[in-house]
Amino acid sequence: MSDLSVHHLLGIKYLKEQDIQLIFETADHFKEVINRPIKKVPSLRDITIANIFFENSTRTKLSFELAQKRLSADVISFSAAQSSVKKGETLIDTVNNILAMKVDMVVMRHAHPGAAHFLAQQVKASIINAGDGAHEHPTQALLDSYSIRERLGDVAGKKVVIVGDILHSRVALSNIFALQMQGAEVRVCGPKTLIPKYIESLGVKVESNLRQALEWCDVANMLRIQNERLDVSYFPSTREYVQQYGVNQTLLNSLSKEIVIMHPGPINRGVEITSEVADGPHSVILDQVENGVAIRMAVIYLLASKLKP
Amino acid sequence: MSDLSVHHLLGIKYLKEQDIQLIFETADHFKEVINRPIKKVPSLRDITIANIFFENSTRTKLSFELAQKRLSADVISFSAAQSSVKKGETLIDTVNNILAMKVDMVVMRHAHPGAAHFLAQQVKASIINAGDGAHEHPTQALLDSYSIRERLGDVAGKKVVIVGDILHSRVALSNIFALQMQGAEVRVCGPKTLIPKYIESLGVKVESNLRQALEWCDVANMLRIQNERLDVSYFPSTREYVQQYGVNQTLLNSLSKEIVIMHPGPINRGVEITSEVADGPHSVILDQVENGVAIRMAVIYLLASKLKP
Amino acid sequence: MSDLSVHHLLGIKYLKEQDIQLIFETADHFKEVINRPIKKVPSLRDITIANIFFENSTRTKLSFELAQKRLSADVISFSAAQSSVKKGETLIDTVNNILAMKVDMVVMRHAHPGAAHFLAQQVKASIINAGDGAHEHPTQALLDSYSIRERLGDVAGKKVVIVGDILHSRVALSNIFALQMQGAEVRVCGPKTLIPKYIESLGVKVESNLRQALEWCDVANMLRIQNERLDVSYFPSTREYVQQYGVNQTLLNSLSKEIVIMHPGPINRGVEITSEVADGPHSVILDQVENGVAIRMAVIYLLASKLKP
Repeated sequence: MSDLSVHHLLGIKYLKEQDIQLIFETADHFKEVINRPIKKVPSLRDITIANIFFENSTRTKLSFELAQKRLSADVISFSAAQSSVKKGETLIDTVNNILAMKVDMVVMRHAHPGAAHFLAQQVKASIINAGDGAHEHPTQALLDSYSIRERLGDVAGKKVVIVGDILHSRVALSNIFALQMQGAEVRVCGPKTLIPKYIESLGVKVESNLRQALEWCDVANMLRIQNERLDVSYFPSTREYVQQYGVNQTLLNSLSKEIVIMHPGPINRGVEITSEVADGPHSVILDQVENGVAIRMAVIYLLASKLKP
Repeated sequence: MSDLSVHHLLGIKYLKEQDIQLIFETADHFKEVINRPIKKVPSLRDITIANIFFENSTRTKLSFELAQKRLSADVISFSAAQSSVKKGETLIDTVNNILAMKVDMVVMRHAHPGAAHFLAQQVKASIINAGDGAHEHPTQALLDSYSIRERLGDVAGKKVVIVGDILHSRVALSNIFALQMQGAEVRVCGPKTLIPKYIESLGVKVESNLRQALEWCDVANMLRIQNERLDVSYFPSTREYVQQYGVNQTLLNSLSKEIVIMHPGPINRGVEITSEVADGPHSVILDQVENGVAIRMAVIYLLASKLKP
Repeated sequence: MSDLSVHHLLGIKYLKEQDIQLIFETADHFKEVINRPIKKVPSLRDITIANIFFENSTRTKLSFELAQKRLSADVISFSAAQSSVKKGETLIDTVNNILAMKVDMVVMRHAHPGAAHFLAQQVKASIINAGDGAHEHPTQALLDSYSIRERLGDVAGKKVVIVGDILHSRVALSNIFALQMQGAEVRVCGPKTLIPKYIESLGVKVESNLRQALEWCDVANMLRIQNERLDVSYFPSTREYVQQYGVNQTLLNSLSKEIVIMHPGPINRGVEITSEVADGPHSVILDQVENGVAIRMAVIYLLASKLKP
């Protein structure tokens, strides 16, 4: 197979397992490219891509922009956070306007779950979902799995625990879909108030004790706790969160085996993980960032090859 | 003639009719370019263009940026809305600073009528007015006329009604100048409070009844109503505006002939026009957006060829 | 010598005199380039540079971006003013994330003195300080000296007075270091409350009388007075400042010799200098802006040649 089964990247749940493998093999190639002195390929010189971010995201936007520039695509970016775009109808107008300017591909982040999917049905362009509310963030899940594969050789058969605020996390949901599709086993661990009730229906076991979760797993993906969640009494305090769900080096050293620590960033150092853990040998956090560019190059390249000439 | 009669595009009123024809013929060429698989030409690789927007305008700015990138120009953009630029004197300093960095052309939007004209007298660079207050917005008028020519074969002899808030509209004024220069007849239709008193001195008849205006015209250009105007009691309410000046499909169907519907965007769907009209066969709204890039490429290309080497 | 003695440009105080000469000779070449019809060289096609501005600075950022584009580097820019970056620890995370995306060089402005220096010790990338609090702004000092050399043939032996708010100025400090290193003599002149106590320990004499300072000097570098300083009773009023420290044409004409007037911009016309002086024959203000691009091209080019392959 040398072709994706989809015309858009809306969510992991729309992909086949072969799609993921094809993306990973393509990313292997681009990872070589971005580690060469000349980090650029002329592959997409005839493609124009619009990055439309209805929510701010410095990291994800930079990663997509770099991926696009290294493919030699033409890029226009606009942050719509401040504009008056509010209704689905107006979202279509905004995007149709951009497409009428002969844009081939749209990378979109939007606060509304399903926004990318809705758009893909309405407009003629390839859509990449860069995060839609608490729903999916497929390129993050792909780069997470790719980083596990890089560190541990394979994703199949691995045990992954996702720790933290599962309820509000698009990263968690996309990771669960991606990991299960590749034959990994997934558990979640976090405060009860931040674990959605439907999680077990996805075949994901809830582990309330962090130490037991870590003893079980090969990889722990430590989600960012957003301070605004702490305000609304989901749980008592940051101090209590750190005591129950924070990972420090002493805890890692006390485990019976070596595990891999991941974090989608930005890290609250001293909350989800200590600096010692973030910068230590268990961490693949900066590999995740580097792999993010290669994965996004692969996704864009593969979707571009499906555009009609 | 293969050369513009001007060194700047400050307003339609400074152009000759042959200038408009030359821009249209050049845009015909660039419209072919942007519909090819390779949408780019290396024409302006040696030109640096600064986009300076003292007022926000996502659409117009994106359209100019895409036009510039497809001509392979180097582009720097800055939005000065938040900066402390306030006086004409400081405007010159800002622009002279940018020009000292060896910028060849400036695209400027400014809240003050005449700002672009003032600038063109003070600095050494080719200036394109991307909107100066309620005064002119020449590239919008050019793309509107170009879209009429594309749909109806010619602008000369056509009857065009501009509907809505004529008083605060730079689109209306530039369109009136452009259409009359090309031999079209123009009328305006809208609430009395939003029609400037000098309009008849421009040879433009006021039509207070929308149905009569539509029965008369070949093309209706439906301007955007800005909600902030509705607050200040120019007229009673949005509902009343829709009843008197909104266009829906039933109204279009009841006319004795087919007319073309234009809108400079962004549309208030359900106010100036319904969604059915916006997306229906009478509408050329997305053609206007596409033509905007071709027209801006043509204007930039023609002005660049007049820069001293 | 054809190589800088440093891997970063953190401050003038870390440079050797030969470094400055090498930067100037390289800038001579690039100044020719940016005055040719084709203003671009393909030198850095394989380099990616991130501009990270934790404080707003339209001018400096545009100047760096143009320098980078004319060297054909890939550029990503982000303004972190609005982001939640607050602690040194998080600064490293932000920058390490960007570097993990395979960025070779970072241009950074930060409110905290020493931020660039701290960063250079922590991350693997070439760092250019684009201003760190009231500490250093080395490219500004280099372009100032380069403009003196261009106008007067040499910096050595020249007498330069820096007028205004020395206390809060990174421009003043970097200029003092650069000028003294090249054999110029430096004095400062301004309200006592805006002259730091340590200034004489740098070998810089304080001159309280503006006329005497101007009679003494070959070059007067007129710093911008920030209105926020005037509020806090450092001195009585703008009017009084203008009377004691403002330069107008009458004052210049009354001097016994011709002097050169510099200003780092943006000018408060009518405060530090009148419009007549800013736009008159003594002023090299726009030369400074033009030279800024050439100096920044030279610094980036020379540092890039020291990056490991």
